[in-house]
Amino acid sequence: MRDFLPEDVRRREYVIGIIKNVYQRYGFEPLETPSVENIETLLGKYGDEGNKLIFKILKRGEHEASGQADLALRYDLTVPMARVIAEYQSKLPRLFKRYQIQPVWRADRPGRGRFREFYQCDVDSMGSTSPVIEAEVCAAVAEALTELGFNDFVIRLNHRQLLTSMLNAVGIPEALHATALVAVDKLDKIGPDKVRAEMEERGIGADSATRLLDSLGGTDAAGFTGGDEAGVAAFENLRQIMHLTTGSRAEGKIQIDLSLARGLSYYTGAIMEVNVADLAGSLGGGGRYDNLVGMFLGQNIPACGFSLGLERILVVMAERNMFPPSLALSPADVMIAAFDAAGLGEAMRVAGRLRGQGLRVFVYPDADKIGKQIKYADSRGIPFVAMLGENELRDGSLTIKNLATQAQDTYSQAAAGAAIVAALKQRAG
Amino acid sequence: MRDFLPEDVRRREYVIGIIKNVYQRYGFEPLETPSVENIETLLGKYGDEGNKLIFKILKRGEHEASGQADLALRYDLTVPMARVIAEYQSKLPRLFKRYQIQPVWRADRPGRGRFREFYQCDVDSMGSTSPVIEAEVCAAVAEALTELGFNDFVIRLNHRQLLTSMLNAVGIPEALHATALVAVDKLDKIGPDKVRAEMEERGIGADSATRLLDSLGGTDAAGFTGGDEAGVAAFENLRQIMHLTTGSRAEGKIQIDLSLARGLSYYTGAIMEVNVADLAGSLGGGGRYDNLVGMFLGQNIPACGFSLGLERILVVMAERNMFPPSLALSPADVMIAAFDAAGLGEAMRVAGRLRGQGLRVFVYPDADKIGKQIKYADSRGIPFVAMLGENELRDGSLTIKNLATQAQDTYSQAAAGAAIVAALKQRAG
Repeated sequence: MRDFLPEDVRRREYVIGIIKNVYQRYGFEPLETPSVENIETLLGKYGDEGNKLIFKILKRGEHEASGQADLALRYDLTVPMARVIAEYQSKLPRLFKRYQIQPVWRADRPGRGRFREFYQCDVDSMGSTSPVIEAEVCAAVAEALTELGFNDFVIRLNHRQLLTSMLNAVGIPEALHATALVAVDKLDKIGPDKVRAEMEERGIGADSATRLLDSLGGTDAAGFTGGDEAGVAAFENLRQIMHLTTGSRAEGKIQIDLSLARGLSYYTGAIMEVNVADLAGSLGGGGRYDNLVGMFLGQNIPACGFSLGLERILVVMAERNMFPPSLALSPADVMIAAFDAAGLGEAMRVAGRLRGQGLRVFVYPDADKIGKQIKYADSRGIPFVAMLGENELRDGSLTIKNLATQAQDTYSQAAAGAAIVAALKQRAG
Repeated sequence: MRDFLPEDVRRREYVIGIIKNVYQRYGFEPLETPSVENIETLLGKYGDEGNKLIFKILKRGEHEASGQADLALRYDLTVPMARVIAEYQSKLPRLFKRYQIQPVWRADRPGRGRFREFYQCDVDSMGSTSPVIEAEVCAAVAEALTELGFNDFVIRLNHRQLLTSMLNAVGIPEALHATALVAVDKLDKIGPDKVRAEMEERGIGADSATRLLDSLGGTDAAGFTGGDEAGVAAFENLRQIMHLTTGSRAEGKIQIDLSLARGLSYYTGAIMEVNVADLAGSLGGGGRYDNLVGMFLGQNIPACGFSLGLERILVVMAERNMFPPSLALSPADVMIAAFDAAGLGEAMRVAGRLRGQGLRVFVYPDADKIGKQIKYADSRGIPFVAMLGENELRDGSLTIKNLATQAQDTYSQAAAGAAIVAALKQRAG
């Protein structure tokens, strides 16, 4: 897990700000859940591999010695949201669209863009089975990525029911569907030969495995689903989703990919994943999960969502130099330098006045030699130093030094703020 | 631990936004640390009571069965920051001012404004022993509270060295100083009689306890410190801090209170706490801790900080109705209603166009009866509904219904956005 120094935080906040803004324009509302959930809420929702990756919290007080865990760190934002929907059903609208941007924790092996604490940026829509939901979720994600400066992403689209029909059509028994999909999910990482081998290891016949891998490259729904009605309907659903994104930022970026499986077990309909060429994993993914809320509520509520991974976006943006240079911000617009301890009170008052004009002001706290003070400002990239010497204290004035040009001018304290604001504007060009 | 529904999140973000903005104007830079720290980093930093309140995380994998914990949830923001200062010393400036607004976790009994997961809003300055540091930290906190609308807060100020001198002067042996301060810290909660009783329980002689309680109400440093030099210097330090805040938002709000002790053991100099009359606990507190970084670095770096408690601020602001009404925001400015499924694609395109003009747009996802759709918009406080019926689809137009006035007008799709923006402005008045 990582510390974020000032420039890291500014980059993170820049990305989060853009994503949040797009989500709000799509009518999604903010929701936040606690970092810690009851352990039962999480166990059994992410498959066996997921269970192992959950960080578990020891019972407190006298029970601590028992070594038992009753709480756990949030593993994703979807399951806690499903719990919230069930718990607050009477307070929430029938159609509820929420966004949630918070950290989650997985005891996974760290890798490029993969960390044990990482932020997810989720949108989810509850209460409708319309393909408009999937289309909007894809459009929102595409718009967020576009505003961040990405133009080469691809949204891959598939459908769990279509996969089920295909698995049936090639003769894989239903009991092995889940394990087969775990293997298929690795197709773009390890290639068809290794997936075929892994399927056989997982107990799937060689013939079924080969036929399935052949089908995954196909485009004729009726053919590869064996004409199964539910499979054909699923394919039609994907066509509708594609059609509905016409004119949105997802148009031209979204494509059906029958090999997309998605690891999580709770999806029931369309599934999607967004990729860029220079990142092995995905930037994010999602899908429809019409039964998850029912696991908490005892009554199903249709739902569909998409989660963007903040850290992966940041990794690619850093490598591609996509951040505006202004994020390498200095800590302040101006530093106040007093020549001796007697001037420090006045330094604070001057700082207050300049802050009142919206400036970010750093008061140098010690009456060090002025050269040392200016050197500090320079090393921090603070562009202006406002100096309070004997003359300035006597006259109520302020000498402003521009560290880039070395020019300095003396102003009345009343006029100094406006002069700095003007110089900053000129500097920003 | 709590879930935050949309209006809760908006209120939290409003408060955080104001605090962050003030901290930035004071030249503090953002820092974030992981939620999870190595358990050794936290143990022993918060006293025995603190150790018990730390949430501990079970080892993973094969070690899980051992019941041992190797990680723990962040208990405050100060200790992790001290670790960061030590770890990144070469990358950080000599004078470093950081703000950090993140959640912390304590396995405490919940109460009014007290939760097991809560946000702290911290500012800390590293690298200088100047009283300017304390004065700026107090001024920044006072300015943040003022901008939030508080005008009745009091910043109480004391000094650990002054307390030490007083404890010495009344004959309390140094080994009992820490336990005596735990009792003194409860003075405003339980009153002098119970504090005297508790001090006696903690092994302090009745005479010393009585003399100490008498001193705590005094104002003559030389008198109650027994003329101890360090104590007199500490009192002078407090006077300087007070003087330096002249002209800031802390002026008139800050007062020396010799009974302030603060629970945490790492303070070494000035300590402060901010209170309002209608909250039993404090809104926040802080102080100077010149030795904490040294516990990680092996070399001391002077430091001083202040932490505001977000949840307590929120509790008081809610009770006092201090939030702007605009925070009870509806999810969107306009809802698009299509009369039938064929119109949904066009609904999405219209939505895209309106979002391009900065509007927050909710696409009703199903072709329900128009009355049902309008009822939904009304129930959510969405002020305008843009309707796409047969005529509108044919003409490329849009009929906008103002739900407050029930008036409706038809516009070209090109003109509709501007009309809604204008109507929203008029409505905001």
